[in-house]
Amino acid sequence: MSLYSEIAEQPDRIQALLENQRKTVEGIADAIRAHDVSYVFLAARGTSDNAGRYANYLWGARNGLPLALATPSLFTYYNQPPKLKNALVVGISQSGQSPDIVSVLEEGRRQGSVALAITNEPDSPLASAADFVIDIQAGEEKAVAATKTYTTELMTIAMLSVALNGDKTDWRELSQVAKWMKQTLKQNDLIEQAAQRYRYMRQCVVLGRGFNYATAFEWALKLKELTYVEAEPYSSADFQHGPIAMVERGFPVMVVAPQGKVLDSLLEVMIRLRKDFLAELLVISNAKKALSLAQIPFTIPDEVPEWLTPLVSILPAQLLAYHLTRAKGFDTESPRSIHKVTETK
Amino acid sequence: MSLYSEIAEQPDRIQALLENQRKTVEGIADAIRAHDVSYVFLAARGTSDNAGRYANYLWGARNGLPLALATPSLFTYYNQPPKLKNALVVGISQSGQSPDIVSVLEEGRRQGSVALAITNEPDSPLASAADFVIDIQAGEEKAVAATKTYTTELMTIAMLSVALNGDKTDWRELSQVAKWMKQTLKQNDLIEQAAQRYRYMRQCVVLGRGFNYATAFEWALKLKELTYVEAEPYSSADFQHGPIAMVERGFPVMVVAPQGKVLDSLLEVMIRLRKDFLAELLVISNAKKALSLAQIPFTIPDEVPEWLTPLVSILPAQLLAYHLTRAKGFDTESPRSIHKVTETK
Repeated sequence: MSLYSEIAEQPDRIQALLENQRKTVEGIADAIRAHDVSYVFLAARGTSDNAGRYANYLWGARNGLPLALATPSLFTYYNQPPKLKNALVVGISQSGQSPDIVSVLEEGRRQGSVALAITNEPDSPLASAADFVIDIQAGEEKAVAATKTYTTELMTIAMLSVALNGDKTDWRELSQVAKWMKQTLKQNDLIEQAAQRYRYMRQCVVLGRGFNYATAFEWALKLKELTYVEAEPYSSADFQHGPIAMVERGFPVMVVAPQGKVLDSLLEVMIRLRKDFLAELLVISNAKKALSLAQIPFTIPDEVPEWLTPLVSILPAQLLAYHLTRAKGFDTESPRSIHKVTETK
Repeated sequence: MSLYSEIAEQPDRIQALLENQRKTVEGIADAIRAHDVSYVFLAARGTSDNAGRYANYLWGARNGLPLALATPSLFTYYNQPPKLKNALVVGISQSGQSPDIVSVLEEGRRQGSVALAITNEPDSPLASAADFVIDIQAGEEKAVAATKTYTTELMTIAMLSVALNGDKTDWRELSQVAKWMKQTLKQNDLIEQAAQRYRYMRQCVVLGRGFNYATAFEWALKLKELTYVEAEPYSSADFQHGPIAMVERGFPVMVVAPQGKVLDSLLEVMIRLRKDFLAELLVISNAKKALSLAQIPFTIPDEVPEWLTPLVSILPAQLLAYHLTRAKGFDTESPRSIHKVTETK
């Protein structure tokens, strides 16, 4: 049962990462500051791409860095890569193997940009193609569905943000994440029971916004990979620009809506979904109003600051995907049709 | 029946746009070239956001410009916009009304970046917030589901690309798009008939890559808005990094796979889906191999160059969404729950 134990070991993994890699990350931040970086150009696939969405908001909000998601086919099939002047080129990959992600970093270096690899394999082709490497130190991940490599990637992204700002008090907040994670994981039995309710669910949507736009995407990906439910993620704003039309009575909507600046925006859609559409809401939050709108509420600790909620709010989602997989009678370790390392060009 | 007539008038609209706005676009291109632009920062929602995906590939491949999709909540809820030094800030919106898109352009101008509005309403708040405005001249769009404003946005994006490169022969290719569109629209009866097959479809995925990544997103959005089918778009590469696990025998997969550099990548997935997964394939293409893998093939003219295929390949998708809406007995003009202008913060 690797998947369950990999979910459970996340607090220890991110704590070790924080302690072991802080010096390395601070050194890399110094090197980045020495360059004239106007924006980040980021390449990743799957779960790592979802971690990249967190970087998009976190580095944007706290470090003033706009982030462009790479279009790897321009580097591989089209062989027409854009000009990467003034870019910090970042590749995120658990295995460090996918040729398309590697080629984005190679091109970045060829053009003289700073290239950073974030990976669980510091001896991989991705690491070789980079100027700087951050080892996420998740340990071997045996389950095909990624869990601990996602949260260690998020922690790495948060550490780099703090190091770039140089604000010492933020390191103290990072050191509390493991504790908040442990508290959240205590809901395991409750989540196992709630999973029964979704035994015959075939489709759903997952809403999040701001920092937790990443959480919505990763939650949906776990549901697709493990339970084969067609789960589509949206920002609550984009959802209202068209897709909300498909919601019928009882349609399941998963929402990640912790306290913070976008909570009002999410509450507005949740009220509409619950009152006007009679939708089913499953909500992960530490906000009373949001939890009270849910048929099925999962909580995270009150004191988690908004910028760190993605590290904690994904845990009930991972546990739900795990228990729903079991409830549906599928394989939690090796989902059909996919493999641990996917190499795309 | 505004929707059908708006689909049908697209060749004339894009031809008029090309003739009327070329001088304006060339003037804006000159002004952009005079600035030190390292990348594009683009804000849009819904259909306009899908047009932005075309810009991502087209301006990347042909103009060397990386493109960052804006995260509007950083400008509105978080009030922590990133630094936009060296950015060309672009807002795309049919109505020019959505406050979040307007605030991205206002911030870009406040920071001294060049701000460009692409809109059907040159007197809108979005246009007022911009240094430069391109009027897409689609005429009033009455149907809630956008069709002609999508293709005129694509044409505008292509015109700006050509103007930035200054290659006169490309204008000649643009002037043929209307003809290719007309040829493609002749399949209307065939598509109406094929739509019957999907009367009871509840969910599907839509695959595309490269320039037609945009087409996959717009196709899926039309299906969701009009037919309430849960249609999820993917790049064929991302699809293999997890979501392919949910495909069962007979699962409908829509693919846009015209001749071009990413065709091999799409064929690889299509063969896997057809042979190993026994999936249902509906394919829009001008490549024999791709069409022969499909249970339901729709064609576009042979001679369309890859970079312009998105303007043509979306037409069978729009017609399919229209006829499927009728087959399912829904309202083609005013889908439930959504409105023509959605204002989000």
